[in-house]
Amino acid sequence: MNDWDICLPAGFQASGTTCGIKNSGVPDLALFVSDTPAAAAGVFTANRVVGAPVEVSRSRVPASQVRGVVINSGNANACTGEIGYRNAIEMTEQVADLLSCSAEEVLVCSTGIIGVPLPLPVISAGLPAAVNGLGSSAEALHAAATAMMTTDTFPKLASSEILPDDVVIRVTGAAKGAAMIAPNMATMLAVILTDAALTPGQCDSLLRDAVDQTFNCISVDGHTSTSDTVLLLANGAAERPAHTNDPEALAEAVRVVCERLATDIIRDAEGAEHIITIDVSGFASRDAAFRIAKTVAESTLVKTAVVGNDPNWGRITSAAGYAGVMFDPGFLSLAINGIGVYRDGAPVNYDAAEVSRCMAAERDVRLDLQLAGGPESGAFSVRFWTSDLTQEYVRLNSEFTT
Amino acid sequence: MNDWDICLPAGFQASGTTCGIKNSGVPDLALFVSDTPAAAAGVFTANRVVGAPVEVSRSRVPASQVRGVVINSGNANACTGEIGYRNAIEMTEQVADLLSCSAEEVLVCSTGIIGVPLPLPVISAGLPAAVNGLGSSAEALHAAATAMMTTDTFPKLASSEILPDDVVIRVTGAAKGAAMIAPNMATMLAVILTDAALTPGQCDSLLRDAVDQTFNCISVDGHTSTSDTVLLLANGAAERPAHTNDPEALAEAVRVVCERLATDIIRDAEGAEHIITIDVSGFASRDAAFRIAKTVAESTLVKTAVVGNDPNWGRITSAAGYAGVMFDPGFLSLAINGIGVYRDGAPVNYDAAEVSRCMAAERDVRLDLQLAGGPESGAFSVRFWTSDLTQEYVRLNSEFTT
Repeated sequence: MNDWDICLPAGFQASGTTCGIKNSGVPDLALFVSDTPAAAAGVFTANRVVGAPVEVSRSRVPASQVRGVVINSGNANACTGEIGYRNAIEMTEQVADLLSCSAEEVLVCSTGIIGVPLPLPVISAGLPAAVNGLGSSAEALHAAATAMMTTDTFPKLASSEILPDDVVIRVTGAAKGAAMIAPNMATMLAVILTDAALTPGQCDSLLRDAVDQTFNCISVDGHTSTSDTVLLLANGAAERPAHTNDPEALAEAVRVVCERLATDIIRDAEGAEHIITIDVSGFASRDAAFRIAKTVAESTLVKTAVVGNDPNWGRITSAAGYAGVMFDPGFLSLAINGIGVYRDGAPVNYDAAEVSRCMAAERDVRLDLQLAGGPESGAFSVRFWTSDLTQEYVRLNSEFTT
Repeated sequence: MNDWDICLPAGFQASGTTCGIKNSGVPDLALFVSDTPAAAAGVFTANRVVGAPVEVSRSRVPASQVRGVVINSGNANACTGEIGYRNAIEMTEQVADLLSCSAEEVLVCSTGIIGVPLPLPVISAGLPAAVNGLGSSAEALHAAATAMMTTDTFPKLASSEILPDDVVIRVTGAAKGAAMIAPNMATMLAVILTDAALTPGQCDSLLRDAVDQTFNCISVDGHTSTSDTVLLLANGAAERPAHTNDPEALAEAVRVVCERLATDIIRDAEGAEHIITIDVSGFASRDAAFRIAKTVAESTLVKTAVVGNDPNWGRITSAAGYAGVMFDPGFLSLAINGIGVYRDGAPVNYDAAEVSRCMAAERDVRLDLQLAGGPESGAFSVRFWTSDLTQEYVRLNSEFTT
């Protein structure tokens, strides 16, 4: 689906405008608004050091009455002390005044430089235009996703529809993120909207399940930011009674939207030449498979091997070995782009030059790690996405001028 | 102390020779031998995927009767299956024959490429010359340390002496290591020798304490290899009755030798421009301080900031925040090279250009993270060493030719 064809669910409006936080003059203020109060849930960064907007939004969900989400880019309002917290609250109060609702019905996210006070007067001056610009068109949604961007090179949008009995239920999401970058940028943010009718508790469990399998399964550089936030708003505007929703179809739609947005973040990772999809299977628990996948994904040596199109099974299997998971290495096998290179604990004869050519020819690299026996084997699997580590990533992240 | 002045402890001999495992013709076979049976202990990789020499040596320590350690470079004998295990055993049998002892009294380490069968006939042919070359001179020790090297640019030696009552007790160590490197190199190895008289149990606890504070507190790229091994041999040849040893002085000597070798590995890290020393203090447990130090040390974004001489407190404090340790961020402070940049949860006014110039001027960078209050604060601290992450590191580790 072309991004320009992605629509908002019924009863939602969006806008993206320029209020002037960024010196570059590019859009920096996004609004997502539901015409009627929506149920809402959120998943936030696990970092102990969090931005003020995370504190404010986290305290307001799950909720049954949320009208909107205000997002600014260019300043993360993180590590800004007590004044930062008051600024985040005041942003929601000003939006609430313009929407004629209470501040508690507005959620807030900020992304950009950390440790610098939020220029609240600039945002205040821009909010009326942002509210006036609200619309339900694909262009309005695109503008909102664009205004969330920091170092992203493209806006990230995804949508999925369910048509059980001719009544369309739509799930649409917008996200930003491309790693943390110098001098002090932070954050991945995503807003998922649906016109399905859900309770706050349903929103919460639906979102957590989807995030566990998508946003929690990506890593560019292993650095959990201070501001990571994923929000889900459900306003019921599809006019389909809640009890006739197909919960499995809706869960799958939310997961599909989250996966598309999460992998788009990896596709936009700084300096990346390859997108690496890691499938770990055959373990006795999801946690074991997840820890191995994450350890392989965050291994500097695995990521640099992929840059060089090097089918380096030694780095991959040894990263699995230090993940802190018990398993019998004699049952471990590895395939790269479908070609078996390591079976039952030992390398197999394969054409390394052929595998390397195949890695060089495509942007996507698939690593399949399978455990085929032993007391720690089982039926659990995990899929994880990461990018390779290039000299360009190091250059981007080591540039500093005072 | 100049490396050429470093002596073996009494009753030990060493040699470093070329048997021909490496195509380059540089030394690749090292021997460390005690004239009399020595007590011995070892600390080995935590990786689930281990080399055959780790399996063999691990099964033989702690021990009261060890005569020697044989080390080859150029081939790690890891991921080589059952034949690899038999080859490792046979290396120790051949050395034992030449030393007229039992195979169980010989320990073995291998470092180099993984997944390739060990060329045992080449080693067998070279062992008589290695035994003939044994000597107690500084040159013999230097040759042994040189023969352990793979991608190291210099041999790593350290020594410490205790003179309680004119009877010198010496602790001397040799190590190799400079990260894992393409195509499939692995391993850091260290052998520590002392002429103090110790029981196997004393060796074991002395070594574990020292390794916890030194080799376990370094990280180049977070990749635990399949072959990491640190061995301690104590032969009592200083002729000082065991009961008059000063246990604290000896523990400190072992720690000093291990620290010097461990930090030499960081100094030799591939592509490194800065050596980063991270002090984390004020936590209620050593484990909490350790996890924060290790997380900061292994953050790609911290390491790339240091390359760029960027005093990026945001990346450092946010890495502390995602270490999985509970603490109140409002009590966290950070100094870079002694200059406070972040205090009690907020950035302070400092001259960023001055700190950057200071980082650019010196190879060593010091990061001090302090927790000054809250329920998780306490008296525990940890020192951790790492290197920065340069474009040169990525280049070195992504080169691949088939």
